[in-house]
Amino acid sequence: MYARPTLSGMPALDSLRERLAELSDLHALGRLAAWDQRTMMPPLGAPARANQVATLQRLLHDRETDDEIGTWLDELDGDGDALGEIDRDLIRVARRDWERARRIPKQLAGDLALAAAEGQAAWLTARAASDFAAFAPALRRNVELAREYAACFPDAAHPYDAHLADYDFGLTAERVREIFDPLAERLTALAAEAPDKPATPPLSVPLEAQQAAVDTVLKRLGVTEDSWRVDVSPHPFTSWLSAQDTRVTTRFNPEAQFESVLAAMHEYGHALYERQIPPELQRTNVGRGPSMSAHESQSKLWENHVGRNAAFAPVLAAELRAGGFDIDPEALHAAITAVEPSLIRVSADPLTYPLHIVLRFDLEVALMEGSLDVADLPAAWNDGMRRLLGVEVPDDAHGVLQDMHWSGGAFGYFPSYALGCLIAAQLWEALEAGAGAQDDALRSGDVSAIRTWLAEHVHRYGRRLDTQPLVEAATGRGIDPEPYLRFVAPFTRA
Amino acid sequence: MYARPTLSGMPALDSLRERLAELSDLHALGRLAAWDQRTMMPPLGAPARANQVATLQRLLHDRETDDEIGTWLDELDGDGDALGEIDRDLIRVARRDWERARRIPKQLAGDLALAAAEGQAAWLTARAASDFAAFAPALRRNVELAREYAACFPDAAHPYDAHLADYDFGLTAERVREIFDPLAERLTALAAEAPDKPATPPLSVPLEAQQAAVDTVLKRLGVTEDSWRVDVSPHPFTSWLSAQDTRVTTRFNPEAQFESVLAAMHEYGHALYERQIPPELQRTNVGRGPSMSAHESQSKLWENHVGRNAAFAPVLAAELRAGGFDIDPEALHAAITAVEPSLIRVSADPLTYPLHIVLRFDLEVALMEGSLDVADLPAAWNDGMRRLLGVEVPDDAHGVLQDMHWSGGAFGYFPSYALGCLIAAQLWEALEAGAGAQDDALRSGDVSAIRTWLAEHVHRYGRRLDTQPLVEAATGRGIDPEPYLRFVAPFTRA
Repeated sequence: MYARPTLSGMPALDSLRERLAELSDLHALGRLAAWDQRTMMPPLGAPARANQVATLQRLLHDRETDDEIGTWLDELDGDGDALGEIDRDLIRVARRDWERARRIPKQLAGDLALAAAEGQAAWLTARAASDFAAFAPALRRNVELAREYAACFPDAAHPYDAHLADYDFGLTAERVREIFDPLAERLTALAAEAPDKPATPPLSVPLEAQQAAVDTVLKRLGVTEDSWRVDVSPHPFTSWLSAQDTRVTTRFNPEAQFESVLAAMHEYGHALYERQIPPELQRTNVGRGPSMSAHESQSKLWENHVGRNAAFAPVLAAELRAGGFDIDPEALHAAITAVEPSLIRVSADPLTYPLHIVLRFDLEVALMEGSLDVADLPAAWNDGMRRLLGVEVPDDAHGVLQDMHWSGGAFGYFPSYALGCLIAAQLWEALEAGAGAQDDALRSGDVSAIRTWLAEHVHRYGRRLDTQPLVEAATGRGIDPEPYLRFVAPFTRA
Repeated sequence: MYARPTLSGMPALDSLRERLAELSDLHALGRLAAWDQRTMMPPLGAPARANQVATLQRLLHDRETDDEIGTWLDELDGDGDALGEIDRDLIRVARRDWERARRIPKQLAGDLALAAAEGQAAWLTARAASDFAAFAPALRRNVELAREYAACFPDAAHPYDAHLADYDFGLTAERVREIFDPLAERLTALAAEAPDKPATPPLSVPLEAQQAAVDTVLKRLGVTEDSWRVDVSPHPFTSWLSAQDTRVTTRFNPEAQFESVLAAMHEYGHALYERQIPPELQRTNVGRGPSMSAHESQSKLWENHVGRNAAFAPVLAAELRAGGFDIDPEALHAAITAVEPSLIRVSADPLTYPLHIVLRFDLEVALMEGSLDVADLPAAWNDGMRRLLGVEVPDDAHGVLQDMHWSGGAFGYFPSYALGCLIAAQLWEALEAGAGAQDDALRSGDVSAIRTWLAEHVHRYGRRLDTQPLVEAATGRGIDPEPYLRFVAPFTRA
């Protein structure tokens, strides 16, 4: 039951590793609290839970920014030759995390947490009333504090970069723009080719058939009761409490065309990533995925390149048939790849989805550099939707108020959704180039070669490689939108 | 969402209160981890969870024994007149907890945790094989460490008292013996009066009827979905994550005569205690029940004096009928109060139950003082069962190996089960003397007067009173076994 640490003969390294294990354990308890809150907690438990989580966060911040960590790191400086490869990476990442965390004054950290909590509450009310003006003061406060936060990193070329680094270390606004600008142009052109209405009417799968399909598809992918949970929550998510305790959720909408199954496959991708990180990295600071975009590449790979693969459609159709809903594989595949520019990000089709992200990226960069005022945000949003997607926004609830992220001060998070799509497609091509075309295996529902390839080319690194070097290691080149464009181009003909 | 503390103008008091709130929050997260482990966690999550919980315990121990707490307490010394009543109690209890926790060397605390974990694993195996010899070495280690622990409190009159104080501060082995010796004599005599076999055959309630009755009975007692959860676990338990987030469990055995409903009512009693502790005590060190026996008095009050009350039987019978199981109230009441001396504590009837506890108390006192060797424990157990209950123990699985407590080093815990029974009966008589006889209210399923009386006479104190002063405040006298004897005497005629 109790892990007895192996001693390295280097006291500073042992102390550092002990602290990293402690932090890893406490973060896992924080994830448990979040998982519970979203799946199990009775609603009136929320205020006390907020206190409990805030206490844990404060304690984590104290332990993560502790002077002792600096002392250990200094003692280890110059010991590089005596260290193993993993320890070298662990020390490098520990110094980076420690230095970044210490840049933030305690007062600012508290203000950020408070503004996030108050912003989320204001957003909920404002969205329900579709009233941006009611949200604007809280958003303005979050923007101000986010700019203060960015000012703690004066070396960054752009204030936005300080935020991006929290989700995707090594990326910059400039690099994201290099990727997004041509992507937006190509996707806008492709979207314009799509028919006004998809030829295929939306599916309407009975709840029982959806539930049965979620169960059998996840089992087929390797989900077992002894080390997974599958629950329901309003917004699907994944929580990894340890390598052998993985929890995914999905949601069931009687009207939704198969979303429950694709969401479950998406979350499975996040989960598999954390499960396949090597045991020797666990309870360290490199025992998880390096970034939001790397993570999203894994969820999108399973959602898009397995779930929306024409070769997998017969398997999905058979699962639905077993649940009492008859559909032929071609019709299913056409329905889940149909293109239709729309207002809401989370229900967008694969082709237009990245355009929703490009819009948010442009706007949040402008907010961070101060070239866009909060008051002008709705108009800028509506203009962007017209320009990128050709749709008219009827009200703020279906426009600028639809996402929670900014209300909680999460600037710099959005790009990972689109980068994840791009990296997934790039990995999929590399996977098929390396492990062979997967069509036959997918037709028979066999995903073992995919799991193995991902373990060897992506998951094995944990957080030892940041996103860009990871993509280079796995695919031989930097982030490249072409594979994604090749993936979505056929959908305009659906 | 975020509690902003009120400042007292006394920096040491503010710091102390802030620390106590932190500890309270972290303990709540620990309870969440334990609740999850027993209800939700996939089994292979156990080893990593053990690490996470051990990390939290280590951190809690560091924060609870911190030098700073002593500094604040010293600064507050002599400020008594300037303090409110609650703060005086809070400081008194804080000093006691801090001094007790600091008596235990870190090495011993670690050894105890390890021996407990290893002892529990050894016990599971040994019990499955009914092989005491396989458990003896682990138990011996736990006994040795428990004696070392007791030696950290040289002021205690008896080594057992140091352990008792962890569960029931203020009680001593001597006082428990004063209560238990005559109790055992009277109960043994009563048990001898009972017929060899109860006149009423055991109930066998279909699962669906049990489930329906658990739901409706708990609803009747005040359980609502917005701030409670009711789950299933192998051993029923209660977890209070905050005043508005209460989680009880029960278990359903298709063979068991109504245990699921009585267990649910028992857990409800624990839960109600914590829910009715006044808001001004929450997130302090006095914001919970003072002891295991005070807690058990609440669970037993609802199980025995409501659940096994003849006046409540018509309500329970009606709930069962609504669930499709027809039984008349008299037959139900007879079945759940039938007396039959038996081997297993957890399924013992109310009359013989305390005798199981008296045996364990005698044996663990002897183990702590060194007058009984671990090797002689099975024989002493079997002798005691013959003497107290008149039953022959066929094997150790049905004897000395049946309970987990000692395997985890929990010596001094058992008395609370019997003391809880006694205090419950004493409180019930005081309640009916103060609030009037409850028969009419119970016949109509109305428990509101009971809840209110308990809030005013027991729950309001939180941990500001220890068990004995609490019993005196609520009933006007010390712990007294007579009410319990009056409660169980009629059962011999069932």
